[in-house]
Amino acid sequence: MDILDIIEKKKNGLKLSKEEIQFFIRGVCDGSIRDFQTTSFLMAICLKGIDFEETFNLTMCMAQSGEMLNLDDVGDCVDKHSTGGVSDTTTLVVVPTLASLGVKVAKMSGRSLGFTGGTADKMEVFQGYQTEISTQEFKNLIKKNGASIVSPSANFALADKIIYKLRSESGTVEDISLIASSIMSKKLASGTKIIIIDCKYGNGAFMKTLEDSKALAKLMVEIGKKAGVKVCAVISSMDQPLTEYVGNNLEVYSSIKVLNGEENNLFELSSFISAKALVLASQAKDFEIAQEMAKKAIKSGIAKQKLKEIVLAQGGKIDVIDNPELLLPKNNKFEIYASKSGFVEHIDTSKLGKISHDLQKVNGQIVRQDDVGLILNVKLGDYVKCGDAICKCFYNQLDDINEIKIMLENCFAFGDKKIETKLIEGVIE
Amino acid sequence: MDILDIIEKKKNGLKLSKEEIQFFIRGVCDGSIRDFQTTSFLMAICLKGIDFEETFNLTMCMAQSGEMLNLDDVGDCVDKHSTGGVSDTTTLVVVPTLASLGVKVAKMSGRSLGFTGGTADKMEVFQGYQTEISTQEFKNLIKKNGASIVSPSANFALADKIIYKLRSESGTVEDISLIASSIMSKKLASGTKIIIIDCKYGNGAFMKTLEDSKALAKLMVEIGKKAGVKVCAVISSMDQPLTEYVGNNLEVYSSIKVLNGEENNLFELSSFISAKALVLASQAKDFEIAQEMAKKAIKSGIAKQKLKEIVLAQGGKIDVIDNPELLLPKNNKFEIYASKSGFVEHIDTSKLGKISHDLQKVNGQIVRQDDVGLILNVKLGDYVKCGDAICKCFYNQLDDINEIKIMLENCFAFGDKKIETKLIEGVIE
Repeated sequence: MDILDIIEKKKNGLKLSKEEIQFFIRGVCDGSIRDFQTTSFLMAICLKGIDFEETFNLTMCMAQSGEMLNLDDVGDCVDKHSTGGVSDTTTLVVVPTLASLGVKVAKMSGRSLGFTGGTADKMEVFQGYQTEISTQEFKNLIKKNGASIVSPSANFALADKIIYKLRSESGTVEDISLIASSIMSKKLASGTKIIIIDCKYGNGAFMKTLEDSKALAKLMVEIGKKAGVKVCAVISSMDQPLTEYVGNNLEVYSSIKVLNGEENNLFELSSFISAKALVLASQAKDFEIAQEMAKKAIKSGIAKQKLKEIVLAQGGKIDVIDNPELLLPKNNKFEIYASKSGFVEHIDTSKLGKISHDLQKVNGQIVRQDDVGLILNVKLGDYVKCGDAICKCFYNQLDDINEIKIMLENCFAFGDKKIETKLIEGVIE
Repeated sequence: MDILDIIEKKKNGLKLSKEEIQFFIRGVCDGSIRDFQTTSFLMAICLKGIDFEETFNLTMCMAQSGEMLNLDDVGDCVDKHSTGGVSDTTTLVVVPTLASLGVKVAKMSGRSLGFTGGTADKMEVFQGYQTEISTQEFKNLIKKNGASIVSPSANFALADKIIYKLRSESGTVEDISLIASSIMSKKLASGTKIIIIDCKYGNGAFMKTLEDSKALAKLMVEIGKKAGVKVCAVISSMDQPLTEYVGNNLEVYSSIKVLNGEENNLFELSSFISAKALVLASQAKDFEIAQEMAKKAIKSGIAKQKLKEIVLAQGGKIDVIDNPELLLPKNNKFEIYASKSGFVEHIDTSKLGKISHDLQKVNGQIVRQDDVGLILNVKLGDYVKCGDAICKCFYNQLDDINEIKIMLENCFAFGDKKIETKLIEGVIE
C-alpha cells in the first residue's frame, strides 16, 4: 500500500477500506507517513467527506493505536464528556452525584483548550489534588470511592494525539467526522462501558449551530453503539456561559454553590445528565425517577460529601468546599456597564472565555493563575438599564485595562425584545 | 496575517487576495509556514480551485521568490518548453534550427522525470558537454552562437522548488492551476521574452486527455500574456512515443537522423514549433513562410551545423553528430513479438518510458546508463502479423528478463481496424 494512492483515492471522493485506514494510522504512529502527507489527506477528508463506516474504522484504529484501558475488574464505569464550553462545571457536580448513588465513574479530563475550560485545571483548584496517578491507583479509587477524576494517560489513542495537533495547525479541525472520531477514540480507549456526552452548541461552543451539534452527537452515539458501549448525548446550549462565573476558582465556587442546593442552569443540566447516566447504568427504572434521585442527591448534600471524599483521596484540600467564599477573588477588579437600556439579546460566549483565559497572561505568556476571571450580572433575556453594572473582571496584571474593558463591553448586545432561551435541546440516544 | 485563516478561506472556497498569496509564498520560503500547512493548503486548492487571478498571482509570487534572470543585454530570447513525453527530442532539433535562422534561444532544460526524458540528460550524451555553466557564460554563448542549452540555476523560483517536492509527496500534483503556475513561474524567472510550449496529451503525457491538455495550455498562455511575454502553446499527441527510439543515446540518434534530413513525426513537430517561434520572434511574416524556413534549415544541414557549434561551445564531443551510428547500442538485446495479427491500436507510452528508464537500474537503484533503451518497429495504425518483431530492448543487466518481456508485450494492443492518428491537435495563442 502507498499513502499517495490512499490520498488520491480520497481526493477523488472514493471510499477507503478498513485496511487503508489501518495503514494510514499505523504510518502516522511509526512516522513512515510524513506530517505533510497526513495534512493533505486530512484536508481531502474535510472536503470530500468520509462515510459512517470509514469514520468508525478511523475511530477504532485511533483507539487501538495506544494503550487500551481495561476496567473489567472495576465493573461497568460511566464517563461523562463535554464537547467544551465556558463556565461548564457540570463534571464537578455530575461525578460526585453519580458516585453517591452507586454508579462508578472513571473520569478522564483534559486541560483548558482555547476559550473553553478544562476539568483537570479546575480540580487543581483543590490545593494538592493529583490529576496524574497510576492506572492501578485510578482503579483502586473508583472501587473505593466510586469515582476518580484524572488527566488521561499520554498513551491513549496515540494516533489521535498526533493527528489532533496537526489538525489544529493545518486548518483541518472543523469536520464532524474528524471531531467525532477524535473524541470517541479517546473514550473507547479509556475502557468505560457507559458514555454520556454533553454536546454543546452555540456561540460559546465548537459547534456553532444546533444542526451541527445534533449531527456530531448522532455520529458519536452511532460510533459508540457499534463499538459496543452504552452511549447517549445531551444537546445543550452554549449561547451564554453556563453560570455567571468564569475562571478556575470562580467556576469551582459555582459548582459548590449548586452542591449546596442552589438551583440554576448548572443544577438543571447536571441533574439531567446524571439522570441519563443512572438509566443507562440501570440504577433507575426510568428517567423521571432518575432525575428525582439525582436532584435529591445534590440538594441533600450527599453529592457534596462525595466530592470531598474524591478530592481528599487524591491529596486535595477540601477547605474551599466547606468555605467556598475562600474562592472569591480578592485581587484587582473593574466593572463593565450597559451601554444602553434593553434586554440582553446576545452574549459573545467564546470571546468571554478567551478574555478570561487571557487574564492569566504575563508578558504575553499564559502563567496559570486561578484567581482571575469574570462574574456576569446578567443572563440572556434580562432587562438592564443604561449604566447598570453587567460584568465584573478580576485580574492581577493587565497591560491595557481599557482595551479589555472595550472587548468585554463588545461581548454584550441589547435589544428591544426579551429573547427566549432553552438550556437542553434534546437527547440523542 | 495567519496561514490558518488563509487555509480556512480556501477550504471554504473563497478567493484569495494577492497579499494572502504573497504571504503564503514568503512563508514557504522563509520556513515560517510549515510543510504540513503547505500541503493542507495545496489540497484545498486542488479541491476548491483557484481562479485565473489567483493562479496568476501565485505564478508571479513563485517566479519572484528566487533569482530573476535578466536577458535584456542579450536581446529577446526564445524558450521552448515541453510538458514532458517519451522519445521527445524536439528540443535537439528546434534549438539549432532557430539559432541557425537568427533567433536567440536561451534554453534551460530539466532532467528525466518519472517516465519522461530530460533534455539535460540527452545533451550529456555528447561526452564532456557542460549543462551547468555560469549565467554570464550562458549569456555570452547565446550572443556568440545564438543558443545555449543548460540546466536551470538552483535559485530559480525557489518557492516552486519547495512546493513541487511537497506536491509530488502529498498527492497534490494533479491540478491544472498548480501545474500551470509551476511551469510558468520557472519560465518567467528565466528572463526569456518568447515562450513556446509543447503541451502534450495522451497516455504518455501528464495530461491524459486532449481537453485537459488544452485547458492547461490556455491557462499557461494567459498567464504568460498577462506577465508581458509572447507565448503560444502547441497541442501535440503523446499516445505513442514521438519517434521509434527510446533512451538517451537512441533519442539523440533519432534527432540527428532528422537533422540529416529524415522526415517523420519529430521532423514535423520540430518544424512546426520552430515556425511558431519564428513568427513570434518576427523573423517570418507568416506561419507558412516560417515553416518553409524551418524545414529548409533542417533539411539543408545548417541546423545540424549549428548543433555542432552549440555542443562544442559547452565542451561536448561532436563525433556522434558526424557518425550517429556510434550511438546505436552494442549491448545485450532481445526482441518482442506480436501476440496476434492486426492493427496496432494502443501503445502504453508512459509504461514504455518507465521500462526504458528502469533499464538503468542496478540492484534497484538508477545508475545512469545511456546505452540502454528501446527501438519500436511499429507505430499506431501499422498492420502486424502474429509473431512479427515489434520492439527491440537493449540492456546491460536485468534481474528478470522474462518479467520485462511480459511488461513490454503488454504495452501493445492490436485490433481489427486501422486507427487514425493526428500529431498536432492545434495551437493556443
